[in-house]
Amino acid sequence: MKRRDIVMGLTAAAAVPAVGLAADAQASGAGGGRGGSAAPLTIQEQGSFAIGGTVITTPGTFDPRNPTNPAGQTLHGDHARVFFQKPVRARTLPLVLWHGYKQSGVGWGTTPDGREGFQTIFLRRRFTVYTLDQPRRGTAGQTTVSTATDASTSDQWFYNQFRFGLWPDTYPGGQFPQGPEAREQFFRSMLPDTGPIDGEVLADGVSALFDEIGPGILVTHSHAGGFGWHTTMRNKNIKAVVALEPGSGFVFPEGEVPDPMPSSAGTLAGEAVSLEEFQRLTKVPIVVYYGDNIPTEPTDIAGRDNWRVRLAMARLWVDAVNRHGGDATLVHLPEIGITGNSHFLFSDLNNVQIADQISDFLAKKGLTR
Amino acid sequence: MKRRDIVMGLTAAAAVPAVGLAADAQASGAGGGRGGSAAPLTIQEQGSFAIGGTVITTPGTFDPRNPTNPAGQTLHGDHARVFFQKPVRARTLPLVLWHGYKQSGVGWGTTPDGREGFQTIFLRRRFTVYTLDQPRRGTAGQTTVSTATDASTSDQWFYNQFRFGLWPDTYPGGQFPQGPEAREQFFRSMLPDTGPIDGEVLADGVSALFDEIGPGILVTHSHAGGFGWHTTMRNKNIKAVVALEPGSGFVFPEGEVPDPMPSSAGTLAGEAVSLEEFQRLTKVPIVVYYGDNIPTEPTDIAGRDNWRVRLAMARLWVDAVNRHGGDATLVHLPEIGITGNSHFLFSDLNNVQIADQISDFLAKKGLTR
Repeated sequence: MKRRDIVMGLTAAAAVPAVGLAADAQASGAGGGRGGSAAPLTIQEQGSFAIGGTVITTPGTFDPRNPTNPAGQTLHGDHARVFFQKPVRARTLPLVLWHGYKQSGVGWGTTPDGREGFQTIFLRRRFTVYTLDQPRRGTAGQTTVSTATDASTSDQWFYNQFRFGLWPDTYPGGQFPQGPEAREQFFRSMLPDTGPIDGEVLADGVSALFDEIGPGILVTHSHAGGFGWHTTMRNKNIKAVVALEPGSGFVFPEGEVPDPMPSSAGTLAGEAVSLEEFQRLTKVPIVVYYGDNIPTEPTDIAGRDNWRVRLAMARLWVDAVNRHGGDATLVHLPEIGITGNSHFLFSDLNNVQIADQISDFLAKKGLTR
Repeated sequence: MKRRDIVMGLTAAAAVPAVGLAADAQASGAGGGRGGSAAPLTIQEQGSFAIGGTVITTPGTFDPRNPTNPAGQTLHGDHARVFFQKPVRARTLPLVLWHGYKQSGVGWGTTPDGREGFQTIFLRRRFTVYTLDQPRRGTAGQTTVSTATDASTSDQWFYNQFRFGLWPDTYPGGQFPQGPEAREQFFRSMLPDTGPIDGEVLADGVSALFDEIGPGILVTHSHAGGFGWHTTMRNKNIKAVVALEPGSGFVFPEGEVPDPMPSSAGTLAGEAVSLEEFQRLTKVPIVVYYGDNIPTEPTDIAGRDNWRVRLAMARLWVDAVNRHGGDATLVHLPEIGITGNSHFLFSDLNNVQIADQISDFLAKKGLTR
């Protein structure tokens, strides 16, 4: 089957609107079954821009007769880049979608089996959607610090780590798209960093975006989760956080950091921040989602065991936020009857159902006007 | 002025349809002046996918208990990636937009001063538009060959090279967007390679795209020009080529390669291919555009002098194609009264006028059905 048959044929399911948002959804009348035809999208405006970043300068004087000499020249780097689409009659608060490790903004656009991703699903639900490439990744690759790109073979590591199954098998009832074509598309969505990952650079870039666009909702995946807390602590324009499977960077007030949690994938430790900083996380609604096939007992399979401690740490983190007066919710999807989800909740076969969960959460918190 | 004011406010001019396509253009009734409001876009479908590429494997057996060991693991790399948008009632032949050196697909999306780029302009004109990230660039960054990313200071070099002016000045009457904000956005659109540039890898990736999508029109910018000829020679689904300021990789039949052309930026040489290969370039309409401020006499300013020999070589190349029965046209824009254009014709203030030129060419060749 040609890729274009997949891409062009299977986009209809994404058009099904969320409960509670049906009357508002642009595509509410669209066919709801696979293989049908989704309603057209109506977009008021789209584009992209770079935001944040820094400038480095090499001492000396630029000579246009010797232009490859870096002397006297600048480099603009370490910015983030966003692609944005604004629907007609957009809701007030946009969504900012921040990818995880080895990923970029395009991962939100299309699932590996060619269905619509969160970018288009939420656009249909009348959210303005910004998809980020974080500094030193993808189209925001211009870096002020050189690094050797990672070309080491690692597909199987990440296959397990992302809980698509235990390589080469899938999990029974797993929601990650099946088959060699989807698997290949996923592997080809991975990216190397173009410079070292630096939490300050990342939080600066995304904070600059919220300075630019004003109030909005931050949606993080995986590695962006921890950087997302740091960004939320420094920018009051972040009015809610939806964290999909955060796995690191859990911040706690000084003196309240839990004991480190060993696992066969390494030890997960919380990070101490001042109480004042931490309290900023108590000012906005936060919801954290985890999928399925996370073990409850230690195992020597690293790609499973890391999620055992990450989910456990996330529970302590949510408790800490709420203990300090916050409004944080952890949803372990199997506990509410949604089973089989991988680490890529927004790419899974039931991604519309996951989007519905998020829509409902935002509606309940009054964030969908 | 905040970036979002620029981005949100100045998009209307792009909606003006081309002469000859007005009746068909989706946005034909939109306001035509700056600061007005462009008509909404209606999109049947959008998304992205990876195409082409290779897989490398490290010998050995993958051990899920030691997942960071590359043994027995694969890496999928060296593919291209496209973002596509298909309008309602799309024309038969899509456009494939291939960026130049240090650039990516996003450069076609939005101009540095926040106007609509060719991606959206041609979407409004009912073309399905694919924007490419070539292998080892941007969102197609996963590479099978590691390289150190380039973080050397080079903004001023490229400012001159791209004929925005002679740093820090602009050319009188220059069409590249003025001011520090646009300049910064441009510099931040630059990208390092994530692996070595390899012409075979590039042509393979883009040829795989045309295998996938079927017949279409290839639009190249700058560095992609030469790679575009090679791709056109190997894939019959390329039904026309629009080359914006190609600067290298001019191919000639063996025995007909012109003398190398020295310049203060180095020597430009043609490339020999077999007559059989070359003749494939005579089977499709080709148009080549160059902007303004290209010197006619040698100069020691490298960023100017390279264009003197590139334009001269392009003239010989077009002559060679036509001598062998082809249909190639070179348009030096100042000769038809369009002045001030930089190397980035599709980003310039008059980019709608440039798009009109292309629309008219395609219409004349019967490629806009």
